[in-house]
Amino acid sequence: MSSAQGFKQAPHKLLVIPGPIEVSDEVLYANAHPSMSHVSPDFIPVFGDCIRMMRTVVDTAQGQPFLIAGSGTLGWDQVAANLIEPGENALVLHSGYFGDSFADCLETYGANVDQLKAEIGAAVSQEAIESALKAKKYKLLTFTHVDTSTAVLSNAKAIAETVRRVSPDTLVALDGVCSVASEEIHMDAWDIDIILTASQKGLGVPPGLSILVASNRAMQVFNSRKTRVTSYYGSWKKWLPIMKAYESGNPAYFATPPVNLIYAFHTSLSKITQSTPSLADRYKLHREASQRVKAAATELGLKQLPIESDFAANGMTALYYPEGLGAADILPRLVKKGIVVAGGLHTAIKDKYFRIGHMGITAVEESRGDVETVIKALKEALAEART
Amino acid sequence: MSSAQGFKQAPHKLLVIPGPIEVSDEVLYANAHPSMSHVSPDFIPVFGDCIRMMRTVVDTAQGQPFLIAGSGTLGWDQVAANLIEPGENALVLHSGYFGDSFADCLETYGANVDQLKAEIGAAVSQEAIESALKAKKYKLLTFTHVDTSTAVLSNAKAIAETVRRVSPDTLVALDGVCSVASEEIHMDAWDIDIILTASQKGLGVPPGLSILVASNRAMQVFNSRKTRVTSYYGSWKKWLPIMKAYESGNPAYFATPPVNLIYAFHTSLSKITQSTPSLADRYKLHREASQRVKAAATELGLKQLPIESDFAANGMTALYYPEGLGAADILPRLVKKGIVVAGGLHTAIKDKYFRIGHMGITAVEESRGDVETVIKALKEALAEART
Repeated sequence: MSSAQGFKQAPHKLLVIPGPIEVSDEVLYANAHPSMSHVSPDFIPVFGDCIRMMRTVVDTAQGQPFLIAGSGTLGWDQVAANLIEPGENALVLHSGYFGDSFADCLETYGANVDQLKAEIGAAVSQEAIESALKAKKYKLLTFTHVDTSTAVLSNAKAIAETVRRVSPDTLVALDGVCSVASEEIHMDAWDIDIILTASQKGLGVPPGLSILVASNRAMQVFNSRKTRVTSYYGSWKKWLPIMKAYESGNPAYFATPPVNLIYAFHTSLSKITQSTPSLADRYKLHREASQRVKAAATELGLKQLPIESDFAANGMTALYYPEGLGAADILPRLVKKGIVVAGGLHTAIKDKYFRIGHMGITAVEESRGDVETVIKALKEALAEART
Repeated sequence: MSSAQGFKQAPHKLLVIPGPIEVSDEVLYANAHPSMSHVSPDFIPVFGDCIRMMRTVVDTAQGQPFLIAGSGTLGWDQVAANLIEPGENALVLHSGYFGDSFADCLETYGANVDQLKAEIGAAVSQEAIESALKAKKYKLLTFTHVDTSTAVLSNAKAIAETVRRVSPDTLVALDGVCSVASEEIHMDAWDIDIILTASQKGLGVPPGLSILVASNRAMQVFNSRKTRVTSYYGSWKKWLPIMKAYESGNPAYFATPPVNLIYAFHTSLSKITQSTPSLADRYKLHREASQRVKAAATELGLKQLPIESDFAANGMTALYYPEGLGAADILPRLVKKGIVVAGGLHTAIKDKYFRIGHMGITAVEESRGDVETVIKALKEALAEART
């Protein structure tokens, strides 16, 4: 791969929404890699490395990664089409916005879905999960690790423990679109069956790659299906031989992979898995960045959406506008200062809050000063709005 | 959008496989665009323009484009999941390799599929199509406009005419992954219902975008479905409001679009639809480049796969190795000269032939001299192999 020396991305506003996030010059330069054959001997090991490095990121020895051109949403189809057979039961934990959509996706592929809905700003309690699992047998439980709409963090370790204790065969799927590489995840130690994510958040790459890692248990369930897989593009029957081929250094073809994005992904994963700071230190830096943003918000009188700090994500912050102020008072002022944050997303309270992302290089490369830039701009914008 | 001035992609071998193709510095620079919000007022019109420009490329006034993160293969799922209801009949014309896969995809979504298979190097005859349409009622007919495995070009205009005459309600789907922007297409004038393609061939962009345009007839058939759409990620119920929103200048969210790739796509489509040469001239330049390659091959004693010139694509050439020589004699010699061509793909004759792509800037920007570079290298490689 060519060196990025000298390449600088164009000047632009600081993007601190909860994804897409700021992407480094090195990663963007890799995205501008000259066109390459998807079966070239130069490209195959790059793809193979990405598969191996994804295992490191989610801390699994034997999980099976799938890297497929698509949005994060495609991960839901992968779960539903490959692991659910028509009429089977799925339990969806809902902590914001994305539970409804994951449920809709599962129903599309024939699942009977029950949802456990937490109040706004909270995650579903272990007690509620335990009673639901005792009341009915579920093939699959899904939860949103960080709900991008509310910044609510679910306790992945505790959820998996509850499932293993109460209903050991139930598959546990972690929707990590807004958590992988910014929130701590230990797939094997916590005994999670599916981790699905996308490229444009903690992984620090432009959007366009659906990333999923499946446990041995999930692959066994998949292999013992009685009915055929009901998606073509999302079928692991098609993709598993491709992933195995690339990982073993051989070409294979089902659909053309997003070659340039894989080069970009390789550049970012190399940094995440093989450089300083270590993965553990990266999580720590995300926690620290998050604490700085949240402390500053509290000092400014801004209330967080998550109703207690256990529920608060480390990769993003969701804040109610202060009494008497709204989006029009704050967001355009931030834009004028060169800062792009995100408005509300949760339909019930869409206009009452805004969201700040602090994932990837914004949290980890402290010399960029992104967090301080955001805090300073927020202070100024609030002061202007209040006068 | 920032100017590309000064950006040069890294030195690399000339990629003349039938996709991915060589991509211009401008397009690669756009792929390295700074991260942008997918709902930003700067990005929305860029996406909207891409929708509008795709209509120009396939020459339709009212066709509905869908631009979705994914490989070209996802276009088959879109057709099958949105237009086929379980138990309906589909007729697949097979002119190489991709008919079998499209049929497999249609069956995944419940279609009863019949295939008409042409001999290797030929397209299915109009007579065969007419008898099949008279023997059974088909909801859908699909054909591969250019089969990337054989370089066989099907006569899109004639196929659509036959369908309209014999079975006017049958939807006509053109798989244009290896033809859009390199072979002449007039969606409205020829009365084609679906044109599906991908970004990495004639459209001159890195892979990762599934592009589909649906006619009014196709959208009416979709809107009058009796059963629910059986894909989530590929569902037009989800995507149609998104495409309409972006085209009208408003943000909307179903899944995060591949923002950087959309910038790259915008750069390439702007060139294709708004610059010199015109679209008509681009087709002419593809025909001329093709003729130069094919004439040189004939002079070198190399036989084409397509059994007559009417069946020969203009964006690529498939050539049998000469008597006594094989892949090992030719392809590594070309690589040494800095030229990457593709081996065979059609399973029955995989080791007997190779493929050269001449799409996009390789065909259109004659000052690059790509076609002459390839011809010279091929001459030298053959001479070396024969001594």
